[in-house]
Amino acid sequence: MSMYEIIRKTKHLRPLTSEEIKKLIDGYVSGSIPDYQVAAWLMAVNLNSLTDEETLCLTMAMKDSGDVVDLSGINNVTVDKHSTGGVGDKTSLIIGPVVAACGVSVPKMSGKGLGHTGGTIDKLESIPGCRTDASFSDFIDYVRNTGFSIVSQSGNLVPADKKLYALRDATATVDSIPLIASSIMSKKLAMGADCILLDVKTGSGAFMKTTEDAQALARLMVATGKNAGKKCMAVITDMDIPLGKAVGNSLEVIEVTEILKNNVRGRLYELCIELSADMLMMAGKGTKEECIRLSEDAISSGRALDVFRRSIAQQGGDIRFTEDYSVLGEAKKKHVVYSLRDGYISGMDSEEIGLASLALGAGRKTKEAPVDYTAGIMLEKEYGDYVKKGEKLMTLFTSSECSMEQTEEKVLSALKISDTAPPERSIVIKVIE
Amino acid sequence: MSMYEIIRKTKHLRPLTSEEIKKLIDGYVSGSIPDYQVAAWLMAVNLNSLTDEETLCLTMAMKDSGDVVDLSGINNVTVDKHSTGGVGDKTSLIIGPVVAACGVSVPKMSGKGLGHTGGTIDKLESIPGCRTDASFSDFIDYVRNTGFSIVSQSGNLVPADKKLYALRDATATVDSIPLIASSIMSKKLAMGADCILLDVKTGSGAFMKTTEDAQALARLMVATGKNAGKKCMAVITDMDIPLGKAVGNSLEVIEVTEILKNNVRGRLYELCIELSADMLMMAGKGTKEECIRLSEDAISSGRALDVFRRSIAQQGGDIRFTEDYSVLGEAKKKHVVYSLRDGYISGMDSEEIGLASLALGAGRKTKEAPVDYTAGIMLEKEYGDYVKKGEKLMTLFTSSECSMEQTEEKVLSALKISDTAPPERSIVIKVIE
Repeated sequence: MSMYEIIRKTKHLRPLTSEEIKKLIDGYVSGSIPDYQVAAWLMAVNLNSLTDEETLCLTMAMKDSGDVVDLSGINNVTVDKHSTGGVGDKTSLIIGPVVAACGVSVPKMSGKGLGHTGGTIDKLESIPGCRTDASFSDFIDYVRNTGFSIVSQSGNLVPADKKLYALRDATATVDSIPLIASSIMSKKLAMGADCILLDVKTGSGAFMKTTEDAQALARLMVATGKNAGKKCMAVITDMDIPLGKAVGNSLEVIEVTEILKNNVRGRLYELCIELSADMLMMAGKGTKEECIRLSEDAISSGRALDVFRRSIAQQGGDIRFTEDYSVLGEAKKKHVVYSLRDGYISGMDSEEIGLASLALGAGRKTKEAPVDYTAGIMLEKEYGDYVKKGEKLMTLFTSSECSMEQTEEKVLSALKISDTAPPERSIVIKVIE
Repeated sequence: MSMYEIIRKTKHLRPLTSEEIKKLIDGYVSGSIPDYQVAAWLMAVNLNSLTDEETLCLTMAMKDSGDVVDLSGINNVTVDKHSTGGVGDKTSLIIGPVVAACGVSVPKMSGKGLGHTGGTIDKLESIPGCRTDASFSDFIDYVRNTGFSIVSQSGNLVPADKKLYALRDATATVDSIPLIASSIMSKKLAMGADCILLDVKTGSGAFMKTTEDAQALARLMVATGKNAGKKCMAVITDMDIPLGKAVGNSLEVIEVTEILKNNVRGRLYELCIELSADMLMMAGKGTKEECIRLSEDAISSGRALDVFRRSIAQQGGDIRFTEDYSVLGEAKKKHVVYSLRDGYISGMDSEEIGLASLALGAGRKTKEAPVDYTAGIMLEKEYGDYVKKGEKLMTLFTSSECSMEQTEEKVLSALKISDTAPPERSIVIKVIE
């Protein structure tokens, strides 16, 4: 079966066999199948989709294209978590310590942020001294010591995904549910954790703009994870409005610390408890209710904060920031945005807020661009809050030469202020097991 | 507008502008747009199609990618003809002389055959001495002298098509009606004739297997030709059964000569008269009925044969073959296939007959393969004929080591013999103006 025949089959909606998919992936990684044939196939997949069975085979072939992490040195049940990416999504830094504080190990490798969504690695690196380039044996030691560590992806994990993703990015074939599912799940399976929790964001700030697409992606990823022999579940969560109040790296680290200090309630806290409980439940720590209580206790007792501090410290971070946020540095310029009218905040386009934060310097426009860790946006008012004309809506932070006036215009147009209170929004839209 | 955005538009069924299509073609030919992006776009076109307007723009951009032939030196109305390719299709060698004998010039550039359909250049080159690699000025002189010449494509005509076709061939994106239409029409427009007649074959031996697809292709090509300012029409013709009795290069040259000697009637003769009349009609030589009479007269008077002989002679061919077919040489081996039963020939799968002829050495399996000019198949019985058990069905010719027994099996399975006479088949299915 030649690559030509493989393209023809997908084009004519005839399912590929496991051998054909393996041949495609191995041939592409080795260079014997050229970019242009794979590009044509990717477009056929984009327009014709793949069956669940084909997606599973693709995921496994991609996973097997490189190293698979051996987590046996941790000697404990391991849980991995993946978010499809959102604006102000700092949950990993909260959930990891919470779950670890409950006796389950959270070994996590993460990527840098690109575009309007931030990356967990960038948030960690905004803490002075904190390094994420640990060797693999140090990483395992970290997880053994504190139960939690996040480092940059290293080694030759899923080279097929790196090569395919670059090609998808150049050929407008990124937004295909089976391709997204196989990309995420091949990396999660290569990471080797026993249980995988998927936080699938939906809404304006998310990759999946509709709940239907988010559900389809979640369903496919859970089926793939289970078929690969893992415990796996997905939670579809709201990303129509930003998560929490802080958008930007060190601003989010402050918010994480405040949550772990048990100083904050709200949608972010609620989501972290929900996701932590799901991870604990998969790890066999009890019923959902019991796991919710365990998670809440981990925060209220200070144990999760303790895990967080010890984890950052072992990665070289200066943990005095947990007592004095000025250790994180401060942006050169602040700009307060005031409300132009009275009313309820009934909409807050998270993609626009993310793009504004990017414009302030908090994110990367290109892969190699530097990040201004102290840049970003701190929301003073959230969805549902009542605001008076002239009252503070948010503060913009930057050290770059970007125009505060333009950014103010951008964020104001992202807000919807209306005379009546908007309906409540639940953060968790659906759980898919 | 980047190539990425162009791919995205076609993927999302949003029509491209003329500028975008020109940018795509120019960028691809110059090498600034890589194969893989064009491959993804071709698959999007294959699955989502293009509008008529986009197809016209694509055709014009392809035509303008290289030289455009200047036929003004011919000083006469010029008509070009294109067949989408069939088994036993030798009409160009008959129609050209007929139309030229009626005072209309037929300057034709043609390609070599590939796969199960033969190429007109190969048929010409089967005549000893006949050369098809004339310089452009010789070609124009030939057409001025006799009204008719067929030579190999030369110069830098439509380089975009050469590059795109090779990519389509490698990425399973050949069978797209707008891509086929733009490939054919860009070449016809670059050839510069005033009128273009398209013979769109349909059926088992043709590229378009169904009449619906053939009609869609014909309609699109005629619309494109007219929008480009040419007189243009298409005839959809039956290729479910081979055209005429001869399949193979020198065998077909003999059949051409017999037709021009006015010794043969039947489907092939009928089609040649029909197509010649359409060409004359487009060139302003009268009504369809008048042009049919002109065409018949050109053959019955011997004037078309005279044009044919003079044309071959001026290209170096040894025209003694028109009086003595042994001048064309003979295959080393002949093998007569006899009928295994009584009955009417009610089916003759032309693709299978074409593949059998290819197996005998009459065609090219790959672009660089040599051709055995004397190889092929001579049908003794045609569709509708009654045959007795033990009677001759056809003769196979080859000079190669191929197995006559295997080929006999192949051709016998391509025939359907039944007890009742099959319905009549008309050679012309539809005319599209």
